[in-house]
Amino acid sequence: MEKFSATYTDQYQLAMAQVYFEKGHKDHKAVFDYFFRKLPFKGGYAVFSGLEDLLEIISGLSFSEEDIEYLKENGFKKEFLEYLRNFRFSGNIFSCMEGDLVFPTRPVLQVEANIIEAQIIETILLNMLNFQTLIATKASRMRLVAGDAKLLDFGLRRAQATGGYYATRAAMVGGFDGTSNVVAGREFQIPVSGTMAHSFIQSYDDELEAFRDFAEGRPENCVLLVDTYDTLKSGVPNAIKVAKEMEGRGQKLLAIRLDSGDLSYFAKQSRKMLDKAGLEYVKIAASNQLDENVIKSLLEQQAPIDVFGVGTNLVTGDPDGSLDGVYKLAWSNGKPRIKISESIVKITLPHKKQVFRIKDKNGKCIGADAVGLRDQKHIEEIFHPFEPYKSLKIADFEQEPLLKKVMENGKILIEKRSLTEIADYSLSRLSEMPIEYKRFNNPHIYKIGISTQLRDEREKLIRSHKNSVK
Amino acid sequence: MEKFSATYTDQYQLAMAQVYFEKGHKDHKAVFDYFFRKLPFKGGYAVFSGLEDLLEIISGLSFSEEDIEYLKENGFKKEFLEYLRNFRFSGNIFSCMEGDLVFPTRPVLQVEANIIEAQIIETILLNMLNFQTLIATKASRMRLVAGDAKLLDFGLRRAQATGGYYATRAAMVGGFDGTSNVVAGREFQIPVSGTMAHSFIQSYDDELEAFRDFAEGRPENCVLLVDTYDTLKSGVPNAIKVAKEMEGRGQKLLAIRLDSGDLSYFAKQSRKMLDKAGLEYVKIAASNQLDENVIKSLLEQQAPIDVFGVGTNLVTGDPDGSLDGVYKLAWSNGKPRIKISESIVKITLPHKKQVFRIKDKNGKCIGADAVGLRDQKHIEEIFHPFEPYKSLKIADFEQEPLLKKVMENGKILIEKRSLTEIADYSLSRLSEMPIEYKRFNNPHIYKIGISTQLRDEREKLIRSHKNSVK
Repeated sequence: MEKFSATYTDQYQLAMAQVYFEKGHKDHKAVFDYFFRKLPFKGGYAVFSGLEDLLEIISGLSFSEEDIEYLKENGFKKEFLEYLRNFRFSGNIFSCMEGDLVFPTRPVLQVEANIIEAQIIETILLNMLNFQTLIATKASRMRLVAGDAKLLDFGLRRAQATGGYYATRAAMVGGFDGTSNVVAGREFQIPVSGTMAHSFIQSYDDELEAFRDFAEGRPENCVLLVDTYDTLKSGVPNAIKVAKEMEGRGQKLLAIRLDSGDLSYFAKQSRKMLDKAGLEYVKIAASNQLDENVIKSLLEQQAPIDVFGVGTNLVTGDPDGSLDGVYKLAWSNGKPRIKISESIVKITLPHKKQVFRIKDKNGKCIGADAVGLRDQKHIEEIFHPFEPYKSLKIADFEQEPLLKKVMENGKILIEKRSLTEIADYSLSRLSEMPIEYKRFNNPHIYKIGISTQLRDEREKLIRSHKNSVK
Repeated sequence: MEKFSATYTDQYQLAMAQVYFEKGHKDHKAVFDYFFRKLPFKGGYAVFSGLEDLLEIISGLSFSEEDIEYLKENGFKKEFLEYLRNFRFSGNIFSCMEGDLVFPTRPVLQVEANIIEAQIIETILLNMLNFQTLIATKASRMRLVAGDAKLLDFGLRRAQATGGYYATRAAMVGGFDGTSNVVAGREFQIPVSGTMAHSFIQSYDDELEAFRDFAEGRPENCVLLVDTYDTLKSGVPNAIKVAKEMEGRGQKLLAIRLDSGDLSYFAKQSRKMLDKAGLEYVKIAASNQLDENVIKSLLEQQAPIDVFGVGTNLVTGDPDGSLDGVYKLAWSNGKPRIKISESIVKITLPHKKQVFRIKDKNGKCIGADAVGLRDQKHIEEIFHPFEPYKSLKIADFEQEPLLKKVMENGKILIEKRSLTEIADYSLSRLSEMPIEYKRFNNPHIYKIGISTQLRDEREKLIRSHKNSVK
């Protein structure tokens, strides 16, 4: 994990921090909510990702001497810079677990810290959680439709610069099986795979010769790319020849890869040719502009594809470039805080809070999370956050608290899990969820309700601000 | 600039490299073209960005002991790893200048190196150039419509993780004026600015008190955010009070910032209120989901906005998550090379090449680039690359060669330019371009033609591959 400078932030965090410092607010305790407003991909759920990276980054965040020097040149004041020189995040963080399913408008995570520290970490927190959650969600949608097929990330070349590094990690959280990205594979202990590009074949005068050299040099996990010149007339026949030669050496060709043309048609034709040659064990990998819809369609057409290599649409979250997560003040200096807005759906939820997943007696999620005050243990009834006449009695349901303390006084409290463990957890959470929330077209809308107490507290604050404006 | 490991690559580059190494191909000279197939944003041009970063990264690329150890555990062989231990890129690179306008299907850059080195740098090259070119293009479109208004990048929180760092740089290449991103500002010498978030105001019991404290603490470049509770009834009146108090101290409020609601309406109302109070000098900044279309519309409505803060849509290139740039073998081991494809538009251009911009006698671009063989000095006639009956005689036009040698034997040949210089160069290139290529709706299509010689060479190769398949 690279070391992050605390200057990985927006300048206004430091501008505000200096004022807090000078005005004696630096030890005011603040609580910020991280939440988002809109599910990506018109989907029914999002997969929370990035927490472990974020906690590691935050626990190591500091300003170097060069950072301090730079800020001095940019007009920040001496006493404040002395404070920054000793900056360490020393607050608490409450969060959902990585891999959990998360939904709009309710807190995914809460930061509780002195206000300067809470502000300085805002940018990196949003940057890391918004992006990884976007990509883990995209990956999870592909996992849902891919059945037993393997899913590999091939996206680094089209990733948004170094963002590709975290995209690979998030893809694993969402259920991918491996990556082509060597540096991310090494850093995050992800299985790395890779075979050949068209250029390898082009660099030879002859495709067969190129396949032979490759199979000799890399007999383990050998995958031959068959579409450089002509898939069915040249690529597959040559691959079959080489597979037979490998058999003679006691080796097995692992797979062929299709990278252009109609993947369903070519997979079926290639499968037939391979089977006819007695190469039923040779798998078929496919790549080229894949996403969850293409994978779903290919498998519905019964294309015999065993491995999907997904690039651009995975690592950039296409067609959604970002999750719209925000970080809003809910409490400071002993009082609940609210942001009123011209738009009612942008009014925030004040207070220290807890979020509960509502389940039936069989542990199945009923399709609702409840948001209450942090000290509420059980919630009787929930209300729509913006439409006060919609309510639901939930007293008789199981209520699983979702926000756990994951950092205390700047120290990480949770144990690091492997990406496989996180992905398995995510799959288990998906299995608790009715199928209506998982379909791609107009999924059922997951309900978020607020408790009576939270509703009343919020109304009190709105009224008091309305009065002060008049 | 962070140090990149040569493992910032796809595994298949290393798999192929090992085979080349073992088969004695390691000193085969190869030439690869970098080009893209589709302009982003349905636009008429793209702004090339990322070259200087890429050259720096490539010139420092190596495998550390830990990298070698990791690759050993992953099955790579001893002799090959010894070779990687001494890996340095020692090839040549020919490229367009950063900031230049670039178009689909013709080489933007050529790499000429031994084939192993050329493969290992492929992934980072695509990663860096695809992304920065995407974002510089997006930024340039905003610069085109923003007139004299300032454009600031506010995107880090919604960027694709650490990709935001390079997004900020590319935004400057495209003509932005500054950023909120402290770490990128420091690294790339970009003006950094930043003021306050809603949380600052929320953390006070009273908006006026918050504004006062902020103006006292940060009187220089003071910008007050006016939409936390009620823009026209509370935010702007309180900002006016504080501006007047600042005048009493011999200070000037720089601006107010609008971040929600109808920006055109609120800007006009705020402007009136400020002017009425004698605060004509106080500027208006606006942010919230801006892009080139919204900025254009706001200015067409004569919204009196002086500064636009652009976030998500800038740094993620929304709605396009990537530029589809590829890296294709054009020459190796003494011969031109080609990739045939099921789709005719994916057939590559073989050979070492040069690209010329075709201009009239006044230095105005006529809307065409010509691709010839590298040793061609002047081109008589160009042909559509895929429709052989379309041609254009260009003998009488000026022909500016675009690919310059920027790296020789692994050493950077060009001098580093400031981002302002690069952005100015980009603007000067835009001014040579007829307006039809710059409009947003159905822009005129820029022509790319290939010379007679290149066309003939390509046809020869296609024929010979067709014959070998039969």
